[in-house]
Amino acid sequence: MRRVLGVDSGGSGLRAALAEAGNPGKADTEVSREPVRTGAAGIEAGHLLDQLLPMVRTLLDRAGGGTVSAVAIGAAGMATLGGELRAELPAALASSLGVRRLALAADAVTAYAGALGQQPGAVVAAGTGMIALGTDLTDWHRADGWGHLLGDCGGGAWIGRAGLEAALRAHDGRRGGSAALLARMESVFGPAPELPGLLYPRADRPAVLASFAPEVARCAADGDEVAADVLARAAGHIAEAAAAVCPPADEMPEGCEVALTGGLFKLGDPLLVPLRAELAGQLPYARPVSAAGDPLAGALLLAAALATDTLRLPRHPALLYVPTEQDR
Amino acid sequence: MRRVLGVDSGGSGLRAALAEAGNPGKADTEVSREPVRTGAAGIEAGHLLDQLLPMVRTLLDRAGGGTVSAVAIGAAGMATLGGELRAELPAALASSLGVRRLALAADAVTAYAGALGQQPGAVVAAGTGMIALGTDLTDWHRADGWGHLLGDCGGGAWIGRAGLEAALRAHDGRRGGSAALLARMESVFGPAPELPGLLYPRADRPAVLASFAPEVARCAADGDEVAADVLARAAGHIAEAAAAVCPPADEMPEGCEVALTGGLFKLGDPLLVPLRAELAGQLPYARPVSAAGDPLAGALLLAAALATDTLRLPRHPALLYVPTEQDR
Repeated sequence: MRRVLGVDSGGSGLRAALAEAGNPGKADTEVSREPVRTGAAGIEAGHLLDQLLPMVRTLLDRAGGGTVSAVAIGAAGMATLGGELRAELPAALASSLGVRRLALAADAVTAYAGALGQQPGAVVAAGTGMIALGTDLTDWHRADGWGHLLGDCGGGAWIGRAGLEAALRAHDGRRGGSAALLARMESVFGPAPELPGLLYPRADRPAVLASFAPEVARCAADGDEVAADVLARAAGHIAEAAAAVCPPADEMPEGCEVALTGGLFKLGDPLLVPLRAELAGQLPYARPVSAAGDPLAGALLLAAALATDTLRLPRHPALLYVPTEQDR
Repeated sequence: MRRVLGVDSGGSGLRAALAEAGNPGKADTEVSREPVRTGAAGIEAGHLLDQLLPMVRTLLDRAGGGTVSAVAIGAAGMATLGGELRAELPAALASSLGVRRLALAADAVTAYAGALGQQPGAVVAAGTGMIALGTDLTDWHRADGWGHLLGDCGGGAWIGRAGLEAALRAHDGRRGGSAALLARMESVFGPAPELPGLLYPRADRPAVLASFAPEVARCAADGDEVAADVLARAAGHIAEAAAAVCPPADEMPEGCEVALTGGLFKLGDPLLVPLRAELAGQLPYARPVSAAGDPLAGALLLAAALATDTLRLPRHPALLYVPTEQDR
């Protein structure tokens, strides 16, 4: 039985899924809650393998044996911190699992494959951060995803930060403040003067900021105009990123699917209503769709495409690396 | 001879100045390049005294002896991290220097005193960060100064960050980008994909962001509209902070002085022209003025006021702490 393995590595740990090559939608899954370490040389290949190989043996045992004919690994940071993975995993997976077909993908690419499969279009992946990825099946186009100080405009940390700024404006008596956001901020974090001391020493500052995004959505739903404006601006930024990566209208006579994936969209209507309006304005030929599957499903889909020689998504040295024989 | 001592403690070290109480404008100065340490209990009183006392002895020797009748110490972080200084310095300076008149001030208060003396008004102190402080001589009013993630709107880190965001928008093909800022960014930091790896691991991220502010000003001066818009928005934010702290028009029939101090204003006309326009719009009764002196001059002025029983600026437990006899 030809089996394929999909892997999703991120801040909350490592997930692996095994399926038959002809039916990647039906998979068995193993989860490790230990995030793969990132060292000076980037994501650590040895730490990933130490966790992954026992998970694969468990999955194969449960499946009744067989071999893995293709693997696709999606990882947060793959594009910039995946050098060691690209250097070591081809040979390591060939010797340990006998796998000769491998794809190493940025998590945005597995999110894309999970959301839209191998169709051209655009995917916005948004949680604490925000990145848009699009393809016409010839090239990848990426927009934003620069992190909380340089961009991720409209993502969870951006929305939370803008909400906290509006709260502190109200505290100071500056223009642009919101008493409702100030009240929520004090309820969540305590008195305003203590907030800097709570936030700045933390290593997970973007997550702390993003934790306030649901409060901004709640205030907007309750009619606070400042909070609604924060979400309207976020919607504008998200649509700008989608518009920058979507294949142009003249290449997509039947329109173009734009999928929204990630935890940010759980904010619901306070974000989604202005976002649909912004997408209609900035990308009138695009159809917003729900993601068909998650990044792990996308990794499985990539692995199945490798196994069946049907990979259509464009290869890329950082975003979707598919080593050739001489790389092993 | 009654002498007074002013001290300014900040990120670049410690400065102390000695003058005659009746002539605080004519001072002799000593400088230590070692910033006073901040520990778990805040700014370390022992580390400050270890540096300050030898400097005072040197100053007294050069002045031909005499005693110090009043000391004012301004320190960055005094309001939130000055607990140990407020607890230990009154007794320590009484026993070591025989000083019985002491003021412990936030650096924004010494900046205020240096800029406007003991007149009511408002001071904007801006460098990497941005804070506004105003008084009607009854209370202090503070606006912003919340740091680079929560505010400091319009300060150096804010301007640099907005400029880098616009550069990366151009890189991505997103709306709101500036090719001129992208070219400057690549010239300063290298290719765009490397910027996150350069910035995020640094401990001095706000300073790295602020280092790009002069490039934004240069692009604006060369006619780049996106850069000019960044500075126009910065000017709006700075004026908002000044407006929030300035005594109200009905209390100031002859108008109110607003002083601009700090390295940010070296950006020159690209910031100052829109800032003057914003101040005229938001604070029509205010007169923008240059700062008369720096924070060290402000500390000397406070010490002289203590020595001559002429302190008019309002006491405050965190911003301008003047311990009474029973605190020693």
